[in-house]
Amino acid sequence: MKINKAKTSKISNVDFDNLTFGKHFTDHMFICDYNNNSWNNARIVPYQNIEISPSARVFHYGQAIFEGMKAYKNNSGEIFMFRPDENFERFNKSSKRLAIPEIDKEIFFNGLVELLKVDSDWVKTGYDNSLYIRPFVIASEASISASEANEYSFMIICTPAKAYYQNQEIWVKVEEKFSRAAKGGVGYAKASGNYAAQFYPTKIARDEGYQQIIWTDSNKHNLIEEAGTMNLFFRINNTLITSPTSDSILDGITRKSIIEIAKNMGIDVDERPISVNELVDSHKTGALKEIFGTGTAVTILPINGFGFRDNKYKLENIPSSYSNLLKKTIHEIQFGETSNFYDWQFKVN
Amino acid sequence: MKINKAKTSKISNVDFDNLTFGKHFTDHMFICDYNNNSWNNARIVPYQNIEISPSARVFHYGQAIFEGMKAYKNNSGEIFMFRPDENFERFNKSSKRLAIPEIDKEIFFNGLVELLKVDSDWVKTGYDNSLYIRPFVIASEASISASEANEYSFMIICTPAKAYYQNQEIWVKVEEKFSRAAKGGVGYAKASGNYAAQFYPTKIARDEGYQQIIWTDSNKHNLIEEAGTMNLFFRINNTLITSPTSDSILDGITRKSIIEIAKNMGIDVDERPISVNELVDSHKTGALKEIFGTGTAVTILPINGFGFRDNKYKLENIPSSYSNLLKKTIHEIQFGETSNFYDWQFKVN
Repeated sequence: MKINKAKTSKISNVDFDNLTFGKHFTDHMFICDYNNNSWNNARIVPYQNIEISPSARVFHYGQAIFEGMKAYKNNSGEIFMFRPDENFERFNKSSKRLAIPEIDKEIFFNGLVELLKVDSDWVKTGYDNSLYIRPFVIASEASISASEANEYSFMIICTPAKAYYQNQEIWVKVEEKFSRAAKGGVGYAKASGNYAAQFYPTKIARDEGYQQIIWTDSNKHNLIEEAGTMNLFFRINNTLITSPTSDSILDGITRKSIIEIAKNMGIDVDERPISVNELVDSHKTGALKEIFGTGTAVTILPINGFGFRDNKYKLENIPSSYSNLLKKTIHEIQFGETSNFYDWQFKVN
Repeated sequence: MKINKAKTSKISNVDFDNLTFGKHFTDHMFICDYNNNSWNNARIVPYQNIEISPSARVFHYGQAIFEGMKAYKNNSGEIFMFRPDENFERFNKSSKRLAIPEIDKEIFFNGLVELLKVDSDWVKTGYDNSLYIRPFVIASEASISASEANEYSFMIICTPAKAYYQNQEIWVKVEEKFSRAAKGGVGYAKASGNYAAQFYPTKIARDEGYQQIIWTDSNKHNLIEEAGTMNLFFRINNTLITSPTSDSILDGITRKSIIEIAKNMGIDVDERPISVNELVDSHKTGALKEIFGTGTAVTILPINGFGFRDNKYKLENIPSSYSNLLKKTIHEIQFGETSNFYDWQFKVN
């Protein structure tokens, strides 16, 4: 692989204690082009603007998919990724649904590893720190014909991250008017268009004092789906409940890992449909103890309450919450500090 | 408005008799930027690649919308657009749903008119010729935070067009597995992500011998919605039936114009839900006389047959079809050759 190193590093310009998510990028990026029916010219170059036609199909038809991953550095300076095989598989699953050519495992992993090695100083130690990694593919072909492109760019860019939300209460709104995904649609894929479609409803929710939305099924708005950037877990009495994944719910890697970790700890986990009615009822009886979200960006995000129609339902802080227990364990795995779940730990350097 | 003209024209390199849709672009493009809470720096420049950050939100979250319009030149050299006010209104309606700042009417129309004037040689005469105009907005801000951007680019590019399909039978497939849009979703908007989501199902349909898909409702796959790039009309006996627009069906400008033109001609038009069962039954009894699609790209596209499950249903050619009658009239309006529907004719030069 060609590696063209940046002449100077931008790292000293970045205040790692005060990071805005997704705004600062490391010194390098990985690029690989698809044309003439194959992926080629894999290379690492200084992070920089790209030149692209205004008729590139990604601008007109949203033919683009992505993944979200993180690299973690422990106090010995070792860098780990968490289950990157799962991201790679989902990347190609998303690609297939969007009629994007799948990528070779070797290209994906070589790109990741070489990029992390060249930008290893950007991964900071400490549970609050990580390097967020964004592999993505865009349809770059210069044509506005409404069909799949013949040319693509696969890129990886990285941005240093602190906790996604800091020192604030997290409230979520049960959405009954807008929908995130249809049965038979692309909700299970990390398709770019899934996200823009959520911005307007989320803006409305934000204006009402919520941080995120609990999406419900597009048919009757009664079954809980996910939160758009995270899957959801509900602790009712001592059982953790999470909706089964489907073609409208992302198959979250943190979600499936938390299910395994919880089971391994002896916590009952129930993957089954959960309705808004059950959520409200379980709050009324006091059986609802916790709600938390899971995802690469947030890892585990405890939720303080939810809104449904005109009512707000607050959750009390509880000692030894499942979310704290699970977060501690997943952190130890992510930072390569435990022999538990050893096969989920991918050592980079 | 600043106009920076191209030094030389590419027009002599283009074979106007053999055009691939959306591949050749005129000599100029219009650009206007959104930053600091306003649209500014409207300009016409030579058609060229743009420079943009790999972290621009459009690449990651599909925050982009577009319109499709056409310019027509009659034998007197006059250039017309067809109901551009409607495109402008829908442009902002799409923008609103995608949390994109709406654009001023003056900027939109000045951009269109000045661009068409400077590239007027690219609009060719004849009913088979038009200049397809693509206004679009992309989220250009360099940030991968999953929320609406603070910076955008509004651009207009133009591509000369012949008839969308030429000398081929058009078959459509009734889709029962995949879905185009959810209730409460963005199906009514010209959101970029709506289109990429159709590529894979359409590729499968193409492999089965179809040109396009008839999308059905995402819940039961029984009610007919639209064809993704066109609305659909069904002539059962002497009545034209088309599904009512909704939040999952695009409010097509050609569609609504055809409804008015047909009524004006004395044809009965029924805007009501039409089911797949009714379609199949009406074919069996012989009551189904015609199916055609309407849209800016295709204008009116007669359909030769449809497939449903394992059966194919062929339509016979009929004399004096509604689609031919309607096509003739809408062409006369589009090319400024009739005083009928005069207020739909927007003269550019």
